[in-house]
Amino acid sequence: MKILGVDPGTNNLGYAVLSIENRKLMVLEHGVFRLRKMDSHQDKLYQIFLKIVEIIEKFQPSEMAIEAPFHGKNVQSMLKLGRAQGVAIAAALHQQILVQEYSPKKIKLAVTGNGNASKEQVAAMVDQLVTSKIDRDLLDATDALAAALCHHFQRKIC
Amino acid sequence: MKILGVDPGTNNLGYAVLSIENRKLMVLEHGVFRLRKMDSHQDKLYQIFLKIVEIIEKFQPSEMAIEAPFHGKNVQSMLKLGRAQGVAIAAALHQQILVQEYSPKKIKLAVTGNGNASKEQVAAMVDQLVTSKIDRDLLDATDALAAALCHHFQRKIC
Repeated sequence: MKILGVDPGTNNLGYAVLSIENRKLMVLEHGVFRLRKMDSHQDKLYQIFLKIVEIIEKFQPSEMAIEAPFHGKNVQSMLKLGRAQGVAIAAALHQQILVQEYSPKKIKLAVTGNGNASKEQVAAMVDQLVTSKIDRDLLDATDALAAALCHHFQRKIC
Repeated sequence: MKILGVDPGTNNLGYAVLSIENRKLMVLEHGVFRLRKMDSHQDKLYQIFLKIVEIIEKFQPSEMAIEAPFHGKNVQSMLKLGRAQGVAIAAALHQQILVQEYSPKKIKLAVTGNGNASKEQVAAMVDQLVTSKIDRDLLDATDALAAALCHHFQRKIC
């Protein structure tokens, strides 16, 4: 099976496609879609929609795991983050795949055993878990991959 | 021309289609899409997407005006509101129509002359401005119609 992991932010959209076959965890795709330079906030939102639809059409994952923080410093940034999350969720549902949300803490705990692990620690652990070569410098992508791995572990438990 | 006005919330989606022909303002459709009883938050988001796509396909408005508060009491509610707004914006851009956001204060000011007008005052003034019969009790729908009217007035000024 294939799981799409996403970490949607207002400036970067981290994404990764995890393939699970005979207990082998492979990364089919991972990257960071940069939104900072786009003209408008609306354009960013629509590009998130299009990018997620594009990835789903290309890799045909059956489920999407999304890193979704529920807490933030201020209402302005949470509104913007909510918009990015909402668009990512709508894009996945539009492509008729299941969506599961996980808090950053839950993802870190599932992948590293420590709910307060740093992004670098998550990246290092993710690197060990999968057989594919991943770019550890793409921290938003490794976060997205961690979300996909977290979802895989959760599914195994259920 | 036709303007779609929307007031997206997490429990209610207010919507209205305003038609402008020879200075005559007519309401082609207005209503409130109730989301409270839906199973999941995700389902609500997707239903917002589908509803907006449906209205656009039916009435073919060229622009959408959205009531978009930028301030709120707490981060949790702003995150949820942001999700609803993001989905509504993505749905409109997906249907290739222009989107313009207005704060509640700006809409109230444009329609009633008072940025702090109550929902009831907005509904009463909206009722006077359009030739069609509208249901004043549908306050989220009259808010959506007020957003469309605000956009119409802004366009005339430009």
